[in-house]
Amino acid sequence: MDIELFENERVDQLYADDIKIIQSHEVFSYSLDAVLLANFASLPKRGEIVDLCAGNGAVGLFMSRKTAAHITGIEIQERLADMGRRSILLNDLGQQLSIETLDLVNTTQIIKKDSVDLITCNPPYFKDLPTNVANPNPHLAIARHEIKTSLDGVIKEAAGLLKFNGKLALVHRPERFVDIIETMKKYQIIPKRVQFVYPKEGKEANTVLVEGINQGKPDGLKILPPLVVYDAQGDYLPEVRGMLFGN
Amino acid sequence: MDIELFENERVDQLYADDIKIIQSHEVFSYSLDAVLLANFASLPKRGEIVDLCAGNGAVGLFMSRKTAAHITGIEIQERLADMGRRSILLNDLGQQLSIETLDLVNTTQIIKKDSVDLITCNPPYFKDLPTNVANPNPHLAIARHEIKTSLDGVIKEAAGLLKFNGKLALVHRPERFVDIIETMKKYQIIPKRVQFVYPKEGKEANTVLVEGINQGKPDGLKILPPLVVYDAQGDYLPEVRGMLFGN
Repeated sequence: MDIELFENERVDQLYADDIKIIQSHEVFSYSLDAVLLANFASLPKRGEIVDLCAGNGAVGLFMSRKTAAHITGIEIQERLADMGRRSILLNDLGQQLSIETLDLVNTTQIIKKDSVDLITCNPPYFKDLPTNVANPNPHLAIARHEIKTSLDGVIKEAAGLLKFNGKLALVHRPERFVDIIETMKKYQIIPKRVQFVYPKEGKEANTVLVEGINQGKPDGLKILPPLVVYDAQGDYLPEVRGMLFGN
Repeated sequence: MDIELFENERVDQLYADDIKIIQSHEVFSYSLDAVLLANFASLPKRGEIVDLCAGNGAVGLFMSRKTAAHITGIEIQERLADMGRRSILLNDLGQQLSIETLDLVNTTQIIKKDSVDLITCNPPYFKDLPTNVANPNPHLAIARHEIKTSLDGVIKEAAGLLKFNGKLALVHRPERFVDIIETMKKYQIIPKRVQFVYPKEGKEANTVLVEGINQGKPDGLKILPPLVVYDAQGDYLPEVRGMLFGN
């Protein structure tokens, strides 16, 4: 298929899922966190998945190979959403995936409340505003910092969209873990599965994956086996290599 | 030293710390959790440590080799506290350690409020009451189930005893992790260090160690490297073997 690429865009490939994805280091490139989230979330076989803070659509694209559910990405930045829509065409996934340019607080304009089976989100991680105010890159700043939304905003919106017992899966930084737990509980989403991701053996976790159930029963939290990304030589360990390159 | 042993009591040794400890499978034996907690807690060099739910004094005995602080164990069951006091004599640690038979809600009868540098606690893990009502062992039941105290009771008492910026270190089950975080925050103890303990590679965590700071600043949670107890053959992995047998 003939898809237009803009300046400084490239097509990358996630080999494990045979997905092509349009990226730009000047605007947005997916990180390992998107791959981890797509592999961590408990995917429904069918139904409706919504990916909030969708960026260039990476999480939705990666999940599409593992479920027949329809996946809607919600992204506030048109430049990123447009990259995602072209990636969808590039992979011929227009029947299953769509990306809407929308502030996530307006998601109910297109998705019914209490109707979603799974919400995924790789939100902005940083509470503070970018310090490089002299020459900020607004695309990256909005993707990384809580400028246009916040953890509370994401979880509140998710709670409104999810079905009873629907799931919310997030990737975030461990420093925010207490916040995540408290905010989920505030909106009656009960944390049920957690996995910490460690860059190397013997290092502190730098990423956390959390899944909660909307109006779930309290208690019963599971801490999944630790996921270590690199070996001592800096090569991917088998579990992550499998997510990236297949087996 | 000639210390009396009662029926079905034995003297075990923690080789790593060269500590002898009086145990009884009918009344109370320390578990690996006590060793993990004694090695996890951020020990002050000196000052005052209080070990709540002290049982037979294992956590205090194991910490005594690593700090010059005075350590007071608080244990509601006289039978267990008495074992602990005899272990203290057996190790000739009477200058550094003491164990009081006391309901922890009465700890301020002997320890001043706002005076403690570190509180450790290996509390009863189970919210539910023992199901074996036909022939319960009251010593074990009180140690394992929230009969005489609760997570809330422990943390509330700790918050009253701790100095400003004093620390509370707990060992517990991951299923209760959300409870622990919420209850610490309720009493202004901010979780700062967490370590999950996994029985084997590829298994879910079965133990969690949590340390919080009394009136600490919010945020900044660290998730320490995962601690895996056994290898595939069921032998202790080096880190835990070191805690038990030294290096």
